[in-house]
Amino acid sequence: MEREIPFLTIAELSSLIRDGEVSPVEVTEAFLERIERYQDKTSAYITVTANRALDDARASEVAIRDGENLGPLHGIPLALKDLLNTKGIRTTSGSKYFGNFLPDQSSVVATRLMQAGMVLLGKANMVEFAFGPYGFNPHYGTPPNPWDRTRVPGGSSSGSGVVVRMGMAVAAIGTDTGGSIRIPASFCGIVGLKPTLERVSRIGVTPLSRTLDSVGPMTKCVEDAAFMLSAIADPVEDFSVSLKNGIKGFRIGVARLPFFVGADPQVLSCVEKAVGVIDNLGARVEEFYFPEAEQILEGIGPLVVMRVEGYTEHREKLIRSGEIFDPEVRDRLQLGAGVLATDYFEILQKREQKMASAIARLEEVDAVVVPTMLIQAPKVGELTEDQPLQLTTRVVNWLGLCAISVPCGFTSDGLPVGLQVIGKPFDEATILRIAYAYEQSTEWRLRIPEEF
Amino acid sequence: MEREIPFLTIAELSSLIRDGEVSPVEVTEAFLERIERYQDKTSAYITVTANRALDDARASEVAIRDGENLGPLHGIPLALKDLLNTKGIRTTSGSKYFGNFLPDQSSVVATRLMQAGMVLLGKANMVEFAFGPYGFNPHYGTPPNPWDRTRVPGGSSSGSGVVVRMGMAVAAIGTDTGGSIRIPASFCGIVGLKPTLERVSRIGVTPLSRTLDSVGPMTKCVEDAAFMLSAIADPVEDFSVSLKNGIKGFRIGVARLPFFVGADPQVLSCVEKAVGVIDNLGARVEEFYFPEAEQILEGIGPLVVMRVEGYTEHREKLIRSGEIFDPEVRDRLQLGAGVLATDYFEILQKREQKMASAIARLEEVDAVVVPTMLIQAPKVGELTEDQPLQLTTRVVNWLGLCAISVPCGFTSDGLPVGLQVIGKPFDEATILRIAYAYEQSTEWRLRIPEEF
Repeated sequence: MEREIPFLTIAELSSLIRDGEVSPVEVTEAFLERIERYQDKTSAYITVTANRALDDARASEVAIRDGENLGPLHGIPLALKDLLNTKGIRTTSGSKYFGNFLPDQSSVVATRLMQAGMVLLGKANMVEFAFGPYGFNPHYGTPPNPWDRTRVPGGSSSGSGVVVRMGMAVAAIGTDTGGSIRIPASFCGIVGLKPTLERVSRIGVTPLSRTLDSVGPMTKCVEDAAFMLSAIADPVEDFSVSLKNGIKGFRIGVARLPFFVGADPQVLSCVEKAVGVIDNLGARVEEFYFPEAEQILEGIGPLVVMRVEGYTEHREKLIRSGEIFDPEVRDRLQLGAGVLATDYFEILQKREQKMASAIARLEEVDAVVVPTMLIQAPKVGELTEDQPLQLTTRVVNWLGLCAISVPCGFTSDGLPVGLQVIGKPFDEATILRIAYAYEQSTEWRLRIPEEF
Repeated sequence: MEREIPFLTIAELSSLIRDGEVSPVEVTEAFLERIERYQDKTSAYITVTANRALDDARASEVAIRDGENLGPLHGIPLALKDLLNTKGIRTTSGSKYFGNFLPDQSSVVATRLMQAGMVLLGKANMVEFAFGPYGFNPHYGTPPNPWDRTRVPGGSSSGSGVVVRMGMAVAAIGTDTGGSIRIPASFCGIVGLKPTLERVSRIGVTPLSRTLDSVGPMTKCVEDAAFMLSAIADPVEDFSVSLKNGIKGFRIGVARLPFFVGADPQVLSCVEKAVGVIDNLGARVEEFYFPEAEQILEGIGPLVVMRVEGYTEHREKLIRSGEIFDPEVRDRLQLGAGVLATDYFEILQKREQKMASAIARLEEVDAVVVPTMLIQAPKVGELTEDQPLQLTTRVVNWLGLCAISVPCGFTSDGLPVGLQVIGKPFDEATILRIAYAYEQSTEWRLRIPEEF
């Protein structure tokens, strides 16, 4: 092996495990070693389930020895963002309030992954209640950016981004309400897929906004994202089938207006180069006029919906024990308390019109490419406002679309840049195919941060 | 013919028209004569489209003569509640604000009926913006109850109930947000069907509550309701196919608790007799415990949703020209102005849980029967509160179900009583079949009010 076990892809690990070249226990031990080395430095997990992982791995080993039918993720060590319920395993949602919460039942996604054969390494750190774009968590520690410890990892699925990039799990499951999968994927230099909202079950997942929450994979490469999504998708679909068919003749829109406006020139330069690569792969690249996105970028509709729905979910806790929450999260939620129902309803009505109009417009292309984030990961002390940070990701949730972020270069500070491929509802297969074709023409996925 | 043309069913009229025994023009003239006799006394129409109806009828006649393919409602004179947009024909939504509104486009339902061959007699009276259960309209007049001029016709589809019962249209299309089809159907002594919300298009229909509004037929008999629904349903379905197959072995729940509580004893006596008839038809009648309904009956969730969504729809008009609206409607809408988004959202969340739980419970039966209204039509001067009036109908909208009201007797005051058959989502075929079997075993549908 050229690379160590913790940096292999699911396909590579799976074939080694199935061929008997490594055992699930060896694989799990390799990850637990990485976790031991980096957990204290990163707080990337809120809970490490080492004993459970080893038990799972031993059971995997027995199943292989006995020639049992193996699931698609047999013996693959994974992490789950700590708001996916896991039966009998602490699930904090990033909050002290749930510091001792042991769910009675696993989320549908966790159950699906267990059935597929995963080894559960632990529950990944996150912004409390998934409401924040940077990745801060005053209760369980803020994971550092894997490329520069002085910078934020991105949130809210901060720990998921860090464990995948640091080789502390093969892959992770995150959630994305306004960018919470794609922001840390972009800032940590991995792949993050936000599926169409209805594509992956949210049963047993702590809600932020029922209108906008999506559950999806965070992985080292696009192929892994396709594997992971296939394991949790409902309606069921095998996203690996068409993945490697290329993108000749695909119509790819580039939504420079409004998505490139205000971007860091270094980010833009990476994205424009990526557009050139996609062009060279035989796709028809064209300028894509996207007024619906522009109107959303200008409004605060998505924020209002997150605030109202998040506040409603957590209001009893906030009223009873407000002092134990991250004050920033509490303040964001609290902004939902005074919103009038008529304003909220009007926002949702307008959203429906925008969705219909955007979906009609997207008929002209196979997908749209834009930067995932307009900036590189900011330093902890130099934070921008929340809103600009999520602008380019939030649009996707608001319009009911799907999107994937794939690494597309590095800035002069050595920080990764993400390319966001946006697709039509339930058309994850197409964005995976585009992201895969692009990724395979570049070497970005092979870059690993220096040890710290 | 035993009965005059205006009291024949769609099936009877259709076969006379197709056999050449009467021409569409004769049919239309017979209805226009009734309209001329009763319009001034009833205000049942806001707009009578006599010339257009005669043009339609003449075109129908030509089509028959030329042997063209005839639609299922060829030459059948109908009325539309005046909030279904009709291209170039005034559509007031019961409001002075829209006193001169000529839509550019017809609603999908109006278009479907035109394609099916209807002759449009006019636009039926209604409570302003469809927000009120009695049938009052201070702008265009309040239609009287066809059985007792001192009593209310029921609302909000007041005119639709009256035109059908008075022989001023073969059938009508109403809308139902909390009972607006079934209340006037019950009080006027006709059949009213509230389909599952997603069953009939609402495009081009003035909304009261997007969460609860349904569009459906009001007819003299169940067979007509099946014809009408077949003409407007989407997903398309022919509801006549299984209509006459009987109900042997059907499991019919009777939800005495909570639906019979507080009912007028005469109403209950009619409904209990109807239950006996259904039992004798070979159905398995059983007590049905319906706690979800009970919890809804106790709450004001449905009212809050109507107020918030109705207020949002009309708020600009209310703010700019509040003085020109029915003060009662304005006050009802105005109650939506101050509701908090978090309370509204929480209500909708709880509704989803209730829906899931109720739908699971309904798996035990084919349908549930209850009174449509707990009281007979009240006198104009002796009105009950809004809320009790809609209790038994509103539950159906709230739980996402379908229901039909069919006449099941008369009180000693000579006022009709309605039996409500409640069905599962998209299971209109079953409730039509039950209502038909019941109706054919009784003579209630043949009773016609005395002339006035």
